[in-house]
Amino acid sequence: MTPNLLIIGAGGVAHVVAHKCAQHNDRLGEIHIASRTLEKCQAIVASVHTKGSLRQPGVLHAHALDAMDIDATEALIRETAARIVINVGSAFLNMSVLEACLRTGAAYLDTAIHEEPDRVCEAPPWYANHEWKRREACAAAGVTAILGAGFDPGVVNAYARLACDDYFDRVDSIDIVDINAGKHGRYFATNFDPEVNFREFTGTVWSWQGGQWTAAQMFEYRKEWDLPVVGRQSAYLTGHDELHSLSQHLDVPDIRFWMGFGEHYINVFTVLKNLGMLSEQPVRTAEGQEVVPLKVLKAVLPDPASLAPTYAGKTCIGNLVRGEKDGRAREIFVYNVCDHADSYREIGSQAISYTAGVPAAAAALLIADGTWRVGRMANIEQLPPRPFLSLLASMGLETWVREDGRDMPLAALADSVDA
Amino acid sequence: MTPNLLIIGAGGVAHVVAHKCAQHNDRLGEIHIASRTLEKCQAIVASVHTKGSLRQPGVLHAHALDAMDIDATEALIRETAARIVINVGSAFLNMSVLEACLRTGAAYLDTAIHEEPDRVCEAPPWYANHEWKRREACAAAGVTAILGAGFDPGVVNAYARLACDDYFDRVDSIDIVDINAGKHGRYFATNFDPEVNFREFTGTVWSWQGGQWTAAQMFEYRKEWDLPVVGRQSAYLTGHDELHSLSQHLDVPDIRFWMGFGEHYINVFTVLKNLGMLSEQPVRTAEGQEVVPLKVLKAVLPDPASLAPTYAGKTCIGNLVRGEKDGRAREIFVYNVCDHADSYREIGSQAISYTAGVPAAAAALLIADGTWRVGRMANIEQLPPRPFLSLLASMGLETWVREDGRDMPLAALADSVDA
Repeated sequence: MTPNLLIIGAGGVAHVVAHKCAQHNDRLGEIHIASRTLEKCQAIVASVHTKGSLRQPGVLHAHALDAMDIDATEALIRETAARIVINVGSAFLNMSVLEACLRTGAAYLDTAIHEEPDRVCEAPPWYANHEWKRREACAAAGVTAILGAGFDPGVVNAYARLACDDYFDRVDSIDIVDINAGKHGRYFATNFDPEVNFREFTGTVWSWQGGQWTAAQMFEYRKEWDLPVVGRQSAYLTGHDELHSLSQHLDVPDIRFWMGFGEHYINVFTVLKNLGMLSEQPVRTAEGQEVVPLKVLKAVLPDPASLAPTYAGKTCIGNLVRGEKDGRAREIFVYNVCDHADSYREIGSQAISYTAGVPAAAAALLIADGTWRVGRMANIEQLPPRPFLSLLASMGLETWVREDGRDMPLAALADSVDA
Repeated sequence: MTPNLLIIGAGGVAHVVAHKCAQHNDRLGEIHIASRTLEKCQAIVASVHTKGSLRQPGVLHAHALDAMDIDATEALIRETAARIVINVGSAFLNMSVLEACLRTGAAYLDTAIHEEPDRVCEAPPWYANHEWKRREACAAAGVTAILGAGFDPGVVNAYARLACDDYFDRVDSIDIVDINAGKHGRYFATNFDPEVNFREFTGTVWSWQGGQWTAAQMFEYRKEWDLPVVGRQSAYLTGHDELHSLSQHLDVPDIRFWMGFGEHYINVFTVLKNLGMLSEQPVRTAEGQEVVPLKVLKAVLPDPASLAPTYAGKTCIGNLVRGEKDGRAREIFVYNVCDHADSYREIGSQAISYTAGVPAAAAALLIADGTWRVGRMANIEQLPPRPFLSLLASMGLETWVREDGRDMPLAALADSVDA
């Protein structure tokens, strides 16, 4: 019996999730898409039909839903008989959608950490502030809740698990590097929801170093990386979701996240931050209107989905892992390269949305077939990585491993490593 | 009989006007200050008392007024028996305040051109779009309406008139140069209302060249100037109010305005403009709230009045005039230098507000004593400049003339030139 699927959200990532789930609707059953704005859901439905993404004829419906409303979400889960809910709406919805899943027994999936609208970057580990408080409730109810099932967090957590299990006896450091070497041709745009994007970078930069949380400022630490396909790139030490679970679940003293930024992005970000335009706290205009500057900024910036048609170039996201194997120092880079134009050709998305959305669809398939139907809350590194990475390779995101200057697909390496 | 005075607005310029009028309340009578926010008017009243600016004991009252409401403004003019209204509120109020003056016979004064909230920089000459349409009404009612009585427009218009009358047989060009060489120590701030400041620079740059309107883009033309006191400075060809009346009232083929901008200002401006944050057109947030980006930007930027305590350095604003006198080429620079710290010490203001507000107070005194009580609408260059410039010298803004490398105060030159 197929589980039926409810996708919450109708942005760029939801678009990808809908398309990739539609490509496997024989295993997922009915697909329902719900967000505040019905028209955005309908546009995704239309796109799935236009691209012919449905593997077989089946239900694909759009719904209007305020997912902050737990009762309404619960009702929609029951009405659609959804057994898997993929939450790719705003970062403010996680806890209410999870609650609706607990009430209905549906499995829960998301791709980013929960945030409260009026607070930014709370004390580490972030998951402990919200999601992990519901661990026992999930276990008691037997509800599968998979947190952070995008690319980063998500696939990079599986890379970390894979490295620890299969490549090293001891891991000393994991540096996650996220480079978008693509060009969208606009003056300035964020690659996903501007509100979430900027909130990531306005607080303290937390990293896990020497087995403890270390605080830094944004753009304080810069490092050059020489990466496959995209070549030499600058990236900056950045706070990111996955550090907050990997640090707790793996025995690795140094886990850092590095994100690539160009000079232009940094200049625009710096201006906006210093002016106060990135603030999530309301201000009052001379006319007496109360507004949140960050929400206004979001309104004037391009919709990330609108970047897709002209986006050219590639992303490279991966984990540089250092440690020891059989008494000798080892260093590998586990990574994926994704092409913006290929993603657009396949399903009308740019690669940032594509890399975030495909893993969520893959995770749903692993819940549907039982592989990841664990009946409890889990971050990705707590789940077996190989079924996930194999499935992703077949769905458009291939994993490669660079070692000693040689790049090989993980699939080709599997035999020798597993042996 | 003293006329009684109503000041509309409670920003930085209104603060200066109130103080300078208080210093001459023996000639102006009661002083009333009105704006949307009563507290801001009350703060000005308190400041006037604290600084001991009132020349003699007298009425100094704060009022709440929405000056877009013509009836309410008319009622307040009648209630206060004000015979002079100084409009130093937002640029959107001119036409409604002028209408209230026409209804009551009170004299009208402002310091900047009228603007409509939803349009920026209309076709030249700007005054013809709004103010000049009421010329006949003013003449018919015998209402004195003096437009643009700040520094620029205002004092620089008087400089232009003075040069044409007293220094040249033929004027070929007038370049008005506005340099603020002061430092406020904040990351970024505008020196007057951000909304008005940015609107000045987002549209076409109109200048009067070869006897016709010439269009350019902001920051397209840059020129180095070697000025008294402030030294070498870069300034950019900029659109400005005074070009739109000087071009019509003086027979001068080239009239240009140059404003000094640092690299940092230009960078911040460029980022904000390209993002759409300087737009006066409303946008809708994801939550459905309709907001004008420029008004939100204004809300996050420092209040220009708040810059005063730490502002250091000087402004230099003047007219470089070229032409012919007695058959020989002549070039003079007529200018004022104003010190931020001196302005703050005297009345608690920075020099940008000071240079804009003192001339409005001086113009009110010239209406009160009959010198400028012309019973019609006039721009400053249509009025005798010397009484204005003499009065300004006694009120804190001295005019200097540089010629052949020598700098002399206008007062000292008056005898020889007038002879």
